[in-house]
Amino acid sequence: MPTLRSHVSGGWYAPADGRPLHDAVTGEEVARISSDGVDFAGALSYGRTVGGRALRELTFHQRAALLKALGQHLREHREELYAVSAQTGATLGDSKFDVDGGIGVLLAYASKAKRELPNDTVYVEGDIEPLGRGGTFLGQHVCTPLHGVAVQVNAFNFPVWGPLEKFAPAFLAGVPSIVKPASPTAFLTAKLTELIVGSGLLPDGTWQFVAGSVGDLFDHLTGQDLVSFTGSASTAQTLRAHPAIVRNSVRFSAEADSLNLSALGPDAVPGTEEFDLFVKGLTTEMTVKAGQKCTAIRRAFVPAEHVDAVVEAASARLAKVTVGDPATARMGALASLEQREEVRRSIKALADAGRIVFGDPDSVQVENADADRGAFVSPILLVGDPERAEPHEVEAFGPVSTILPYTSTEQLIDYAARGQGSLAGSIVTADPAWAREVVLGVAPWHGRLLVLNARDAKESTGHGSPMPQLVHGGPGRAGGGEEMGGIRGVLHHMQRTAIQGDPDTLAAVTGRWVTGAQRRETDVHPFRKHLEELRPGDTIVAGPRTVTQEDVEHFAEFTGDTFYAHMDAEAAAANPLFGERVAHGYLIVSLAAGLFVDPDPGPVLANFGVDRLRFLTPVKFGDALTVTLTCKQLTPRDSADYGEVRWDADVTRQDGESVARYDVLTLVAKQASA
Amino acid sequence: MPTLRSHVSGGWYAPADGRPLHDAVTGEEVARISSDGVDFAGALSYGRTVGGRALRELTFHQRAALLKALGQHLREHREELYAVSAQTGATLGDSKFDVDGGIGVLLAYASKAKRELPNDTVYVEGDIEPLGRGGTFLGQHVCTPLHGVAVQVNAFNFPVWGPLEKFAPAFLAGVPSIVKPASPTAFLTAKLTELIVGSGLLPDGTWQFVAGSVGDLFDHLTGQDLVSFTGSASTAQTLRAHPAIVRNSVRFSAEADSLNLSALGPDAVPGTEEFDLFVKGLTTEMTVKAGQKCTAIRRAFVPAEHVDAVVEAASARLAKVTVGDPATARMGALASLEQREEVRRSIKALADAGRIVFGDPDSVQVENADADRGAFVSPILLVGDPERAEPHEVEAFGPVSTILPYTSTEQLIDYAARGQGSLAGSIVTADPAWAREVVLGVAPWHGRLLVLNARDAKESTGHGSPMPQLVHGGPGRAGGGEEMGGIRGVLHHMQRTAIQGDPDTLAAVTGRWVTGAQRRETDVHPFRKHLEELRPGDTIVAGPRTVTQEDVEHFAEFTGDTFYAHMDAEAAAANPLFGERVAHGYLIVSLAAGLFVDPDPGPVLANFGVDRLRFLTPVKFGDALTVTLTCKQLTPRDSADYGEVRWDADVTRQDGESVARYDVLTLVAKQASA
Repeated sequence: MPTLRSHVSGGWYAPADGRPLHDAVTGEEVARISSDGVDFAGALSYGRTVGGRALRELTFHQRAALLKALGQHLREHREELYAVSAQTGATLGDSKFDVDGGIGVLLAYASKAKRELPNDTVYVEGDIEPLGRGGTFLGQHVCTPLHGVAVQVNAFNFPVWGPLEKFAPAFLAGVPSIVKPASPTAFLTAKLTELIVGSGLLPDGTWQFVAGSVGDLFDHLTGQDLVSFTGSASTAQTLRAHPAIVRNSVRFSAEADSLNLSALGPDAVPGTEEFDLFVKGLTTEMTVKAGQKCTAIRRAFVPAEHVDAVVEAASARLAKVTVGDPATARMGALASLEQREEVRRSIKALADAGRIVFGDPDSVQVENADADRGAFVSPILLVGDPERAEPHEVEAFGPVSTILPYTSTEQLIDYAARGQGSLAGSIVTADPAWAREVVLGVAPWHGRLLVLNARDAKESTGHGSPMPQLVHGGPGRAGGGEEMGGIRGVLHHMQRTAIQGDPDTLAAVTGRWVTGAQRRETDVHPFRKHLEELRPGDTIVAGPRTVTQEDVEHFAEFTGDTFYAHMDAEAAAANPLFGERVAHGYLIVSLAAGLFVDPDPGPVLANFGVDRLRFLTPVKFGDALTVTLTCKQLTPRDSADYGEVRWDADVTRQDGESVARYDVLTLVAKQASA
Repeated sequence: MPTLRSHVSGGWYAPADGRPLHDAVTGEEVARISSDGVDFAGALSYGRTVGGRALRELTFHQRAALLKALGQHLREHREELYAVSAQTGATLGDSKFDVDGGIGVLLAYASKAKRELPNDTVYVEGDIEPLGRGGTFLGQHVCTPLHGVAVQVNAFNFPVWGPLEKFAPAFLAGVPSIVKPASPTAFLTAKLTELIVGSGLLPDGTWQFVAGSVGDLFDHLTGQDLVSFTGSASTAQTLRAHPAIVRNSVRFSAEADSLNLSALGPDAVPGTEEFDLFVKGLTTEMTVKAGQKCTAIRRAFVPAEHVDAVVEAASARLAKVTVGDPATARMGALASLEQREEVRRSIKALADAGRIVFGDPDSVQVENADADRGAFVSPILLVGDPERAEPHEVEAFGPVSTILPYTSTEQLIDYAARGQGSLAGSIVTADPAWAREVVLGVAPWHGRLLVLNARDAKESTGHGSPMPQLVHGGPGRAGGGEEMGGIRGVLHHMQRTAIQGDPDTLAAVTGRWVTGAQRRETDVHPFRKHLEELRPGDTIVAGPRTVTQEDVEHFAEFTGDTFYAHMDAEAAAANPLFGERVAHGYLIVSLAAGLFVDPDPGPVLANFGVDRLRFLTPVKFGDALTVTLTCKQLTPRDSADYGEVRWDADVTRQDGESVARYDVLTLVAKQASA
């Protein structure tokens, strides 16, 4: 039987022998695993130097393009992954959840990065902070990639999605990964690694893979490395307290499985669509991946008077769930026989604080499989006593949930907190006011909350699905970590640094013109420059144009905007902000465009928007307007023959006072290629 | 001698006796300290219930108003704080740094909260995330206050600023504090607490104070509590690994003193203003607070050829620094005699890897004080070997710095990283390009970087001053924490939760209208409603108005904006985005305003801005525009008779397609009070 190979320090490494891994369905040995002989210090060093340096050379957009290509490559090969996934006990549906879900994260991050990150290597976060009155001393936060490795320790239940959802944001940030899956299903992550390495798409050293234990890897961690852990709360605790992590303040993020809740709203009585959605969500979360999801519903809160109805409806659904060969049955096996013993122990503890209303933990009818050799277990539904500790603390990591009655919203919120921190919760109600009360009541204990009802059910991705756009993680028992959450997950891998300096220095550091930095007025109108010719600081000053009463009245008549502040001297005088008639804000920006626009065909293709327009001082009749337009930021599009140019527009009146300030957004063509 | 009182669980508590604390200058006993008998579990519980509940009832703006009032109250009483501060060895300048700095944080946070936080109890973070194509399923991150206590363990060097800079963001977030200062200077924090409690401004249970050790406090921490620690790296490690912190994923933020650098640029040769700024910064950081600042410069990197010049100039400045009674001398005492022994030990280690070029660690001429009883030490300047480990690892927490020569920018960046993480660094150069290279090179190891030169020196707040607007903290050795950073520091005390739901539910949860949520068209134009009468969702639909070729040509002539895409059919046809002549974007928004504005005097006082305007589809001649204006968000101003109203503007053409989308910002009057 082959031993799984690790991929470290630029090559494959296979130990002579290892511990056997078994097919979760047939019990047959599928591979052996060991990391004996892996040079972990060397792998860390290789990642930091070879991988990190290569990544930091690339812009966010270039990294995004590689993620996209990788996602497409894996999509072409997903059937190979499904085939191996079946050996983990997964049905085809389960495999798609894992494999397609992971590919989806790569593609979602690629797309989000192109929209929300600059085509640059530095991330500029938040606004300029003025630190003095004179404008010569400013603050700006920037984020730069940590110079370490993201060590990603994954759980057995998502051998593809788990590594990919951690890898994508790290890679985008410019930080290389060492991927270490849980052993029972590591053969699937090994297959994934073969596909990734085989694609040749990623820079060397950016995806390293360890099959087997982490050896002495943690001893070599520095303050520039990070650890992202998914797994049990107890392992999270052990790793979090590792001396090297504590000593070097290593960023440590944990996702631990938690006692997630779903709550049925008082409005969602039997017969409503919401009631059915609740029951369906509950039974689906119990049976998908045989309930081996850290986000699965463990506590199902139900108004006391509807407990019997929920038991009946859920039992009817569960009775239809066939268990056995994942190729044909609705629910496959747990990941291992050891795991089944663990689940049975937890069910026993839960049953002591309640009663089993569906299923027998020790017996299940199995379809097309050997019930002795495969890690099969029946779905188990309990009704528990919410005043007891067990339902809030004991997690059976399998197809197991406990229904808990509640009698008031306040009580529900109190019970929710007894879980001591969860990854995900769902609230099934059509009543927005009740949803608000419960959401805000339980939010401090939750990383994600789904409100489900007839209005969003069709598009809902369900209780148990983390989304790349949204944070995944939860406080307290759930590990206190955060992953994904769109660009937040990228920034978790970067160091935020507050830069203080003069405007010219900040402009150089950020690659963007900032207020107060030098402007360059050139003979050539900046609208006549192609994207490659433009530089932050390129400026045109145009005007003055005097705004007359006739202008304002004409504009009012033409547009229909006869607001009293423009048209009625007496009413305008009574306005606390104006004191007399003033020009329309829209007239000011229209006239400013008339001043700065270069009319002839040229590289500027369109004005596609305006950001943060503020009218700072009223413009009165007779005021003369001048506009200063300064190139602020360039965002070339790698896959288009144009890019975005952001301009600072400052409209001033005759005394130099700014009357309006805003960003003008344009698309500007690149030079025609020869 | 009185024993310092703790203030816990709503009252003062004084133990019978305690350990003596000494005046740092005279060596006389000033107080005794002990927390024996304090009920720490009770204090935590009191904070969580009484303090937390009271705070969560208040909006961000209401909490900000209390912070402002507290800052003003303390400012009125600052002389009392200065008087006690002198007993810590501080000069008046040092005391102002501590006391006025702390008050400044309160006021800065109060002001920032009113500008950047909603007048609400929930913080809505980031944009709506569409999670389906149909618009019925959306994601939105919200932040809610943790239901625990912020336990703030402070260092001895800033007995006023330290507690206040931690307290302000926690309080704004809605999280009560337990303030535990380091014992040597706890008598000053006790005085601060007397002033705060005496003011009666803060809700009960939101500022608790522990004089003495933390006893068993940490054993009672839950996943809803936080710990912010400032102090030594070794204590940080001990606390970080505390079983309760590890077990409950308690948020733990540490600021540890670090080997901060200042680098002299190659352009800043002797004779330049930058050279003088570097030397002045170095000697100031050595002597302010007798060098007992976690941000002080420990490593001064100097081009090798200028080391002698820097030694000479710095020595000349240090020679003028008198040491002794803080009432008259330029530099006061260290906080304690124990501290002086510690500093002397570190100087010895540093001298082993270099040489002392100014000062004698064992002898100093003392002014108006007893050199034996006061913890006085001379400023000590060394020149070190940057290839040795000691200058990068040994910190003498006193008036001690080491000059380290460098010969290339690459080498400088490499040396910087050997500090393994710092709170603050400064780069003294007038060359923006060199600043960029060094800033981006060392940023991953830094929480804050100052670029100092003649352009910003006048307004610069200096190397060693953390600012409330900017993050304070650093990776690795500096503790891996983050404090302040403006609103970031508030959010550190809140749980971020991703909410998934339909638009109506998200609108209810966030208190804001979101795209897709119900709109209410009423008989009354929303511009006729006062602030209290408006509700998110109030809507007016106006139009259509057809845009003709004549309109476009007229607008072009009137404003001067004769851009070819509007005026030249042939050139417009060649534009890849348009294909034919199109209307001006500014014409579209001007006409839209003409449609939605209600012209008569009323509660709407002004349109003060526009946010996120995007032109989504070109408007062609003959297109008929309709605008839908929907009240999106209300921000009442507690201290004004009006508030801000944000409107969603959606301009559509005859086929329903959106052509422009933006937020209109208005000021709307409250109802006149009776």
